[in-house]
Amino acid sequence: MCGTSARILREAKGAPKDAGLGLVVQDMALGVGAPESGSGVIQYVSSDSGQPQITGRYLSQSQGRDALNDIEGAMYLTADARGASLEELCPPLFQKLVDYGALCRTRLREEMEVEFTIENNELRIIDAVRVQRSARAAVRIATALAEDDVISRQDAIMRVHSNALSEMLHRQVDPTATRDILGRGIAASPGAATGRIVFTSSEAQASAARMEPCVLIRRETSPEDIRGMHAAQAVLTMRGGITSHAAVIGRGLGLPCVVGASELTVDTQKGVLKTPDGRTFRAGDEITVDGTTGQVLLGAPKMLEAALDDAFKTLLSWADTYRDIGIRANADTPADAQTARNFAAEGIGLCRTEHMFFADDRLSVMQEMIFAETPEDRRQSLDRLLPIQRADFKALFTIMQGRSVCIRLFDMPLHEFLPYDKAGQRDLAAQLNLPLSDLSQRVAALSEYNPMLGMRGVRQGITVPEIYEMQARAIFEATVDAAAVGITIVPEIMIPLISAMKEVEIVRATIDGVAASVQAERRTAFDYKLGVMVETPRAALRAQDIVEHAEFLSFGTNDLTQMTYGLSRDDAGRFMSQYVQKGVYAEDPFHTLDIEGVGELLAIGAARGRAGRPDVMLSVCGEHGGHESTIAFCRSQGFDYVSCSPFRVPAARLAAAQLAIVESGYRKR
Amino acid sequence: MCGTSARILREAKGAPKDAGLGLVVQDMALGVGAPESGSGVIQYVSSDSGQPQITGRYLSQSQGRDALNDIEGAMYLTADARGASLEELCPPLFQKLVDYGALCRTRLREEMEVEFTIENNELRIIDAVRVQRSARAAVRIATALAEDDVISRQDAIMRVHSNALSEMLHRQVDPTATRDILGRGIAASPGAATGRIVFTSSEAQASAARMEPCVLIRRETSPEDIRGMHAAQAVLTMRGGITSHAAVIGRGLGLPCVVGASELTVDTQKGVLKTPDGRTFRAGDEITVDGTTGQVLLGAPKMLEAALDDAFKTLLSWADTYRDIGIRANADTPADAQTARNFAAEGIGLCRTEHMFFADDRLSVMQEMIFAETPEDRRQSLDRLLPIQRADFKALFTIMQGRSVCIRLFDMPLHEFLPYDKAGQRDLAAQLNLPLSDLSQRVAALSEYNPMLGMRGVRQGITVPEIYEMQARAIFEATVDAAAVGITIVPEIMIPLISAMKEVEIVRATIDGVAASVQAERRTAFDYKLGVMVETPRAALRAQDIVEHAEFLSFGTNDLTQMTYGLSRDDAGRFMSQYVQKGVYAEDPFHTLDIEGVGELLAIGAARGRAGRPDVMLSVCGEHGGHESTIAFCRSQGFDYVSCSPFRVPAARLAAAQLAIVESGYRKR
Repeated sequence: MCGTSARILREAKGAPKDAGLGLVVQDMALGVGAPESGSGVIQYVSSDSGQPQITGRYLSQSQGRDALNDIEGAMYLTADARGASLEELCPPLFQKLVDYGALCRTRLREEMEVEFTIENNELRIIDAVRVQRSARAAVRIATALAEDDVISRQDAIMRVHSNALSEMLHRQVDPTATRDILGRGIAASPGAATGRIVFTSSEAQASAARMEPCVLIRRETSPEDIRGMHAAQAVLTMRGGITSHAAVIGRGLGLPCVVGASELTVDTQKGVLKTPDGRTFRAGDEITVDGTTGQVLLGAPKMLEAALDDAFKTLLSWADTYRDIGIRANADTPADAQTARNFAAEGIGLCRTEHMFFADDRLSVMQEMIFAETPEDRRQSLDRLLPIQRADFKALFTIMQGRSVCIRLFDMPLHEFLPYDKAGQRDLAAQLNLPLSDLSQRVAALSEYNPMLGMRGVRQGITVPEIYEMQARAIFEATVDAAAVGITIVPEIMIPLISAMKEVEIVRATIDGVAASVQAERRTAFDYKLGVMVETPRAALRAQDIVEHAEFLSFGTNDLTQMTYGLSRDDAGRFMSQYVQKGVYAEDPFHTLDIEGVGELLAIGAARGRAGRPDVMLSVCGEHGGHESTIAFCRSQGFDYVSCSPFRVPAARLAAAQLAIVESGYRKR
Repeated sequence: MCGTSARILREAKGAPKDAGLGLVVQDMALGVGAPESGSGVIQYVSSDSGQPQITGRYLSQSQGRDALNDIEGAMYLTADARGASLEELCPPLFQKLVDYGALCRTRLREEMEVEFTIENNELRIIDAVRVQRSARAAVRIATALAEDDVISRQDAIMRVHSNALSEMLHRQVDPTATRDILGRGIAASPGAATGRIVFTSSEAQASAARMEPCVLIRRETSPEDIRGMHAAQAVLTMRGGITSHAAVIGRGLGLPCVVGASELTVDTQKGVLKTPDGRTFRAGDEITVDGTTGQVLLGAPKMLEAALDDAFKTLLSWADTYRDIGIRANADTPADAQTARNFAAEGIGLCRTEHMFFADDRLSVMQEMIFAETPEDRRQSLDRLLPIQRADFKALFTIMQGRSVCIRLFDMPLHEFLPYDKAGQRDLAAQLNLPLSDLSQRVAALSEYNPMLGMRGVRQGITVPEIYEMQARAIFEATVDAAAVGITIVPEIMIPLISAMKEVEIVRATIDGVAASVQAERRTAFDYKLGVMVETPRAALRAQDIVEHAEFLSFGTNDLTQMTYGLSRDDAGRFMSQYVQKGVYAEDPFHTLDIEGVGELLAIGAARGRAGRPDVMLSVCGEHGGHESTIAFCRSQGFDYVSCSPFRVPAARLAAAQLAIVESGYRKR
């Protein structure tokens, strides 16, 4: 009764080794004998969709689960199936089976797969196990059970795994499809997509113009590839880790993405992709990127569509009634913001403004600004960017309809706006009417050993204050413009890469000054909040000083993890998998928030921030924000909200609700 | 009596505004009248050397300090001076002046400059002020006063500024010399040196071979320039900050060094240095680098020699009797170690092993190792490095004569061993018998976005364990070899860039294994200590776990500052001066330890380290180690020692003694 496999199974389910077992004793029912005798398996909902649907198989003169094997004579259960069916063979028995199903559902409070035997026309129920189900079906089943009052809404919420929700938002390779795997990388953004290979962003845009789905393959992506990524169905890179540029942007766009596929080699100049087994592919060849598994597949395997149905929305609306921490989305563009709204994010927790400067009409002005000789020249260039930025922000405010929008001021090394290749430099020199040597020297002078630890964020805001001035003006003017059309917004302005209180004090003075000017010019008043992105360990340690000038602290856990570990997320890919395999790090800290180390800095920062300003608003806006363990930690520290990729918002809403329910003393019935 | 200038002076000296003033009332003594009447100034020691020597001037029929002006008729005081002298003019008055000098010295407990007036052959003392003095004279004066029991040894120690000692160890541009300043940079390593311009390390070596002093000018230096730096008299770079490679190595070698002189432009290919005022210089032109002021000077201005005299040694030996924190030196080579010993460092606190691999005989083996396909091939290359490393360590142990030597295991990205230029890659490909494309690909694959946060330190130790195995074996075999010649040493092995306890556990297992092997092979026992370099904020936070496997924690404050601020020391130069000028940072945190931020991590790490292992040895081995504020902080946290550049050791010994004396309740008499 309690053999090895039973013991292992019980342990796996968390039951004590010596716990008592219920034992059902019933007559032996053989499926072999006078007609009608046989056995079968029935379930009452679809494993794929969770919708009511009787499926199963029955085989006369058989025992156990033989009917499920592909055996001659096995039949479907319902009359509408092809061929013979149990419903036609024995209508009363079939009806009885259906009735048992309803009983199971209410008594066992679950959709069950029922194993049955018929012996001399008599129905015996042998066993019932939980129906296997897709993520989508799990949502539908749980919601339906709660709607039928079989379980509570809390039960329904607790029964769906939050990670499963993320899967539902994307197309997936059908688990039953045959996979010809060309190579593997890091599963950086979930979902799968098929397209023809392109090796450059411009090819991707051309392909999109022809309405031809494409997969963008790059050694690594840079901000200049953003439009190519927008145009592509999926992205594949050979370098970088879970938080590389491609991965972060991919997740933001909901674009399937595999990064760090170092076993694949690519020669972008020759336009050849080479697999470890020696096959080569060229632009135009069709491949599939599976960002859920990290695989790169040949051709177009069968797909399962994304499922954003009513059950999904119902379950999440219930979740929101239990949830006690805010969920915002990271959104840089109107499209991102719209996705965030669609998933009911409560606001934008992080709007990165630097990508806004890469569109064609802006890039050249940025380059001009970089080469400006005086603050006046610089201001002139920035004046041309002002209306564009103002329009950016107004669009976001309009979509968000008064919900919070937290805008991070410019945070990018200026050299990223300059071309590194000779041809690009020659073009730019011609455009700016400068000698090529001046231009190359400027590029060299701006280059950095460790850009991650270099001249970016507030360091630019202080040494070249004109950029922040322009951005603050754009934000405030957009706020006034939005108010004019009935949208009241209290913009949140966030200063990146702070390491000392004085930095905040100086930038605050600048921004308050701009606000006063705009209010005077436009003869109107508006509120705004100024806060700090806590990305350096020092900002966390000095939080009590910093909040003297900051109304909120938002922890940028990507960078904070980099600094705390002394580990570049872009370079970590080279050894992270080995490290995790050997258990050096229990998990990739760029994927799962390191509670012991980075988490302590969050706790220190939060406590000190609150000590200095009791009502300081606290949040996490890194990639970790949407994960259950991060949300649990942020709840425990009394954070106001977490912010994550728009596509992660539903999972975060559910996870947050589950945590609140568990904390309220919930016990599974 | 209490006009504006008096008030300002009193405030500057820290006296309360309303403090009472002593007022000496004496007869008016006019230096004009019957002979002999006049006035003069005398001092009894040399302001340059501090040696007893009467100097001064006297002018008949004058008042005040007129004698000091270059006035016709002003005479020297002693008979051995040229021309007329007061000693010859009025022997008894001169003798009286000398007696007054001795009185002043014992009563005022200081060497004074005395202003006197003679009125009708009668001597009047008008005023006495502290003698102006060079650093060297200050040491000599203080020591002599103590040796004569005029002041205590404590007083003598307290009277010398520790920073002044560092100056004494180097040649300086004579303050009176005329300076034709070609440009300015960061004063990165004190002292001045003159030499002919060279633009490459090989030219520097050639110049040294010709016994011709040279100044090495580089845009920036890399480890490949080490031998060139050894060969040069001074180093000048256009890039980098106070802790750039050139600066750190320069200080280690005691080589005058100016870095980040971005107003000078250099074209190393054409071999031209250009000044902001448009002058150009070529290889062979003579310039002077003043690493004390950060200036680059034309030609060869007059110099003051370094002074390491008996008074210096006496004062430091007294200091050591009061000092209560250890002072070690950072030393990578036998030459460094010898300097450390000369300055009485108690041991080596940081021996960086990576530079050892750049000598010609080693570099090619390292390159071979990098291209090894299997661990076995890798081991074969490393086996060839083993005897060389063993000899390195034995040399250090021999010089240090049983004093502690803390060896940091290899900590350098492998790509730094590979050539970046095509020509170098072609040579290396030929040497390794590899296709050029394979080689370029390997170089590209090893390159990093943020090398500072990349694949180095323990990350290599874990993913390519053969390097650490070889190093541990070399250390242990050298220990056995040293014991054979009567030098008993307990080597300290330090693991760099730790961010998690498990890293220590894994490396410890490897190293313990190597130790056991060597002990078995050599049939002998030896002790060793294994510890951790705390360079990441996470290592400080997790110190309590980490000391489970570590007997010491040495805080690498350079890197820890980088991570805590999110600021690369190599890139900080671009804005640090602006930041300090604007008061954003009170001081450059790479120069002065940031007590509020980085210091808190030191305190946390120390407290947690001690909580996990009460007898854990604690130290600082970054560039900050030798500074008074760092020593004060480390004393307050109960650290065992600080380690600094060998040339900083004397100042550190003195500063540590002063801190201990002040803490013991010392009051200046």
